[in-house]
Amino acid sequence: MDIEKVNSMDLGEFVDVFGNATERCPLIAAAVWSQRPFSDLEDLEKHFFAFIDALAQSGQEGILRCHPDLAGSELQRGTLTAESQREQSGAGLRSLGADERLRLAELNAQYRARFGFPFVLAARFSDRTAVPRELARRLLCPSAQELRTALGEVKKIGSLRLADLLRADPAKL
Amino acid sequence: MDIEKVNSMDLGEFVDVFGNATERCPLIAAAVWSQRPFSDLEDLEKHFFAFIDALAQSGQEGILRCHPDLAGSELQRGTLTAESQREQSGAGLRSLGADERLRLAELNAQYRARFGFPFVLAARFSDRTAVPRELARRLLCPSAQELRTALGEVKKIGSLRLADLLRADPAKL
Repeated sequence: MDIEKVNSMDLGEFVDVFGNATERCPLIAAAVWSQRPFSDLEDLEKHFFAFIDALAQSGQEGILRCHPDLAGSELQRGTLTAESQREQSGAGLRSLGADERLRLAELNAQYRARFGFPFVLAARFSDRTAVPRELARRLLCPSAQELRTALGEVKKIGSLRLADLLRADPAKL
Repeated sequence: MDIEKVNSMDLGEFVDVFGNATERCPLIAAAVWSQRPFSDLEDLEKHFFAFIDALAQSGQEGILRCHPDLAGSELQRGTLTAESQREQSGAGLRSLGADERLRLAELNAQYRARFGFPFVLAARFSDRTAVPRELARRLLCPSAQELRTALGEVKKIGSLRLADLLRADPAKL
């Protein structure tokens, strides 16, 4: 899909296509829509990220809280968004052994208790052994730093999803 | 459901229950969750509204753009959220005649073209004759005033939805 197609989209189309570039936050795509035309993928991305950066901390934490746990109950129940399902499956998180799942559940719970939002990681850059290692490492980081790290992961995920969408055939979306 | 129950909810529960208090913007409930405990319904409401008020204009417009048209294609297709379906049906918008529907479609299109977001109105305070009248009236308002009016309607809708939820039996949610 070329950028002209993106720029020609009406509000409904744009939010349908880009509404989950940031997990379960169609508000961001809806806000960014009026800032078209975009010159290219990078420009589109820049507007998504600028919106996230401009939010108050409560809003940024709200974005993180719209993310599911990695290898959590939603993956087991199959209630993840299509993008999250692909990303977590691609990282091997659907085929964990019982011990691995239990370990991740414990780490996820500790992380939520400590920071007040779920652990967010661009699963497409990770795998079943790196996820728990990274989770355990980031559990020890100071809160302000961890918020920045987590938002960085939201942007990595967004960047990959936007790139996928711009590579996709619009007829198949 | 009493306020203690609300205050005891974990993140997932809170967003499941209150995620659509602002149409298709779970980000707001996710952001507000960490500001508990809430003293009562009014206090809970105050936090939702404070988040909306603190957003930049692009974010406020983004919230409006997450709302469906009144008597629009989503109502016909049955793809509205449950809350919107009840609200629009309750205002008689499912049983419009062809002329009424056409008139509203034209007004909705003019409104979107003029303001860049859909016409938002608390349908539960309105009906099939008042909706087009209010839409035609607000079409003539200055943009800044109309943004304030529209956000006021978002808050009215939110207030009704929050009140419904706090009256509801938690077992039935």
